[in-house]
Amino acid sequence: MSTPPRSVEVTLVHEWDKGQVRQVQDYLAGEEPLEIRVNGLPLTVTMRTPGHDLDLAAGFLLTEGLIQRRSQIAAMGYAESCKDTERGNIVEIALEAGISLELERTRRNFFAGSSCGICGKASIESVRVRGIPRPGAGMRVDPEILCRLPDLLRGAQPVFQRTGGLHAAGLFTVAGRLVEQREDVGRHNAVDKIVGWALGEDRIPLSDSILLVSGRGGFEIVQKAAVAGMPMVVSISAPSSLAVRLAREMGMTLVGFLRAERFVVYAGEERLEMASRPAVVEMRH
Amino acid sequence: MSTPPRSVEVTLVHEWDKGQVRQVQDYLAGEEPLEIRVNGLPLTVTMRTPGHDLDLAAGFLLTEGLIQRRSQIAAMGYAESCKDTERGNIVEIALEAGISLELERTRRNFFAGSSCGICGKASIESVRVRGIPRPGAGMRVDPEILCRLPDLLRGAQPVFQRTGGLHAAGLFTVAGRLVEQREDVGRHNAVDKIVGWALGEDRIPLSDSILLVSGRGGFEIVQKAAVAGMPMVVSISAPSSLAVRLAREMGMTLVGFLRAERFVVYAGEERLEMASRPAVVEMRH
Repeated sequence: MSTPPRSVEVTLVHEWDKGQVRQVQDYLAGEEPLEIRVNGLPLTVTMRTPGHDLDLAAGFLLTEGLIQRRSQIAAMGYAESCKDTERGNIVEIALEAGISLELERTRRNFFAGSSCGICGKASIESVRVRGIPRPGAGMRVDPEILCRLPDLLRGAQPVFQRTGGLHAAGLFTVAGRLVEQREDVGRHNAVDKIVGWALGEDRIPLSDSILLVSGRGGFEIVQKAAVAGMPMVVSISAPSSLAVRLAREMGMTLVGFLRAERFVVYAGEERLEMASRPAVVEMRH
Repeated sequence: MSTPPRSVEVTLVHEWDKGQVRQVQDYLAGEEPLEIRVNGLPLTVTMRTPGHDLDLAAGFLLTEGLIQRRSQIAAMGYAESCKDTERGNIVEIALEAGISLELERTRRNFFAGSSCGICGKASIESVRVRGIPRPGAGMRVDPEILCRLPDLLRGAQPVFQRTGGLHAAGLFTVAGRLVEQREDVGRHNAVDKIVGWALGEDRIPLSDSILLVSGRGGFEIVQKAAVAGMPMVVSISAPSSLAVRLAREMGMTLVGFLRAERFVVYAGEERLEMASRPAVVEMRH
């Protein structure tokens, strides 16, 4: 028996707050792949928060220009033939006869193909099967140093300072030195720019590095860090459920809600020099 | 002569601050499409901020599992054969002989195909050629009402309230009533869920609606709103250069940095009931 994909997941995390450490119960925004099939053919896979999936699929077809009216959808529903783990993650749409769908023009982002299934577990498996080694466990980071990183990254963001709105990724040493930073309207692009720079410098795997990203820490950010060999991913905002599962599976450290005096550790707390206390309480961000 | 893609663009905007309106000079984060070609074949198009494009392309190949080492790249550079407007937006990579690239598995997001060119102008053109009508100019919105929308959207975000990290899109009437809202780890998905809901309710085009999105307002958000017929897109953070150009081209209203007492109007200020003053100063967000 598998459970259906959920919009919220509960997990235990470590919260560091001005030197105090507590183990607390936290809530994660759900993230799972959704495959949209049209007339029996896979069209796209998007990482989404489960819920209102039929609206998402219909809206995607409209906003990407594949349909213009609701009446062009003859039938729509979750796929029934799929594996138990995929239940709720595949939506099938049958279009009215005569609607020519430019499938090839629109087919995209189709990594987690049908061979490995459409579910969070398969998404993680698709990273694992690429033979990416788990990062070493020896790195240790001082929480006080971690808390200084956002200010260092912001200080090195020339475009952000002028425009007020841009994502950034920064590569830091364990001692908190900013090695390189990149900005982009796309958070994934900022990470790829960092990794591409490191590739050119022959620094892959980035075994002793901390990756700091502005905004949220989603599955694809952790995936990219894993491929580049980075043991620690830190974000200013919240991670998703699937990002946390991937980080735990890969033995990586994942930190969220990094502030000047506080952060939350979702995976790999052993790399942070802090002592845990047993109290478990519910967290409010 | 065309100018190369830039990471920052300058534009004139209207700032509303506690009832005072000023015309000010503002800076926009650059957004332009980048096509990555591998061994002569197009692999992907990503919307990115120009700069460090070769790093972005190399990093993308690594993090998506297409290469494992720098030495697998035999040559890399900007395409020379392309049109003047595309200069700097197409990167060509030649892989070492023997590297089998799973092109089909990775080819994605390939809307702005070679037929219409790879540049901001072509991206806008690709929306225009779909025959999307410009929204009517009759809508009028009270700035005081606009400033209340973020609180209304946050109050209606159940997952965000528990997890602290999730994007949201809200559909509002001109009078500031929240009609529907959706949450998702992906901002685009939240918009598609709203549009899909409206499609099912036979409410497309959403001619009298305001779309509020958390986070930034990028090209694809404005594009989706345009297709759904929404005349006004409002975001909490900054829009990109290409989002502003598309909104102006389509006759839409685009607002950014929406706060309780302040916002910035990047396009279509005639739909907001405010009087302009001629002073032009440089803006700091």
